[in-house]
Amino acid sequence: MKTIARTLMITAAALLVSAPSWAQFAKPEDAVKYRKNALFVMQQNFGRVAAMAAGKAPFDAKVALESATNAEFVGKLPWAAFGEGTDKGDTKAKPEIWTDKAKFNEYAEKMQAEMVKLTVAAKSGNLDSIKVATGAVGGTCKSCHDAFRQ
Amino acid sequence: MKTIARTLMITAAALLVSAPSWAQFAKPEDAVKYRKNALFVMQQNFGRVAAMAAGKAPFDAKVALESATNAEFVGKLPWAAFGEGTDKGDTKAKPEIWTDKAKFNEYAEKMQAEMVKLTVAAKSGNLDSIKVATGAVGGTCKSCHDAFRQ
Repeated sequence: MKTIARTLMITAAALLVSAPSWAQFAKPEDAVKYRKNALFVMQQNFGRVAAMAAGKAPFDAKVALESATNAEFVGKLPWAAFGEGTDKGDTKAKPEIWTDKAKFNEYAEKMQAEMVKLTVAAKSGNLDSIKVATGAVGGTCKSCHDAFRQ
Repeated sequence: MKTIARTLMITAAALLVSAPSWAQFAKPEDAVKYRKNALFVMQQNFGRVAAMAAGKAPFDAKVALESATNAEFVGKLPWAAFGEGTDKGDTKAKPEIWTDKAKFNEYAEKMQAEMVKLTVAAKSGNLDSIKVATGAVGGTCKSCHDAFRQ
């Protein structure tokens, strides 16, 4: 009984060690697709608010709030899909994402924090606040893309 | 002054009439990409819970709740991207989506309603409830795909 228990424990430990970090996806390609798709959905929603902030679209407080809320929520999703082994295939991700993970995570968190502020600004319905917040979010997109996207 | 005002009003009215229903997207292709991307992100999250429900993945109540919450939220997004004029391009959408819009909307709403129930089940942490709820969601996916996807 003890031997079986020990064997099971060793097997379980081996599984924990060898499970790839894209394991929540069926294959690494799914992880790549997932993060790209989530980022596109986020960008489309953010872009709608940014267009209003830039005076390129008429300001609609309701649409701005809805879009900011969507962008904030979906902006949380891509990061779980940047696990080890997902650096290949149809991706513009630079190797630095995995060699400088701390900086990448910092950038990802900064973006999400600015997205939270954008939703707060959109709730206020004040276009000037929204302009400031979209500028801050846009800055986090750019700095991360400059450092980590080909 | 009156003439200018009238001209502006007519122009505005014409714009309202002629604005395509994918107007919240820069171009129809973006709408197609948006709905496909949102559906993929939804499916990946739903699939994670469904795998647990089917015994194909170990049950993790925390991951199940997180995934169900994501699937419910993202499952609200694709529908705004099925506007008129988005029936072409890289899409499996059948023309019936636009000729039988009422039925399509009914299916889309049914799916979202079942997703809400799945999150409730995931909150309970009861695997049997989650099994029932994933079955119901899966059924709404299938009936809509059968009717409206090539």
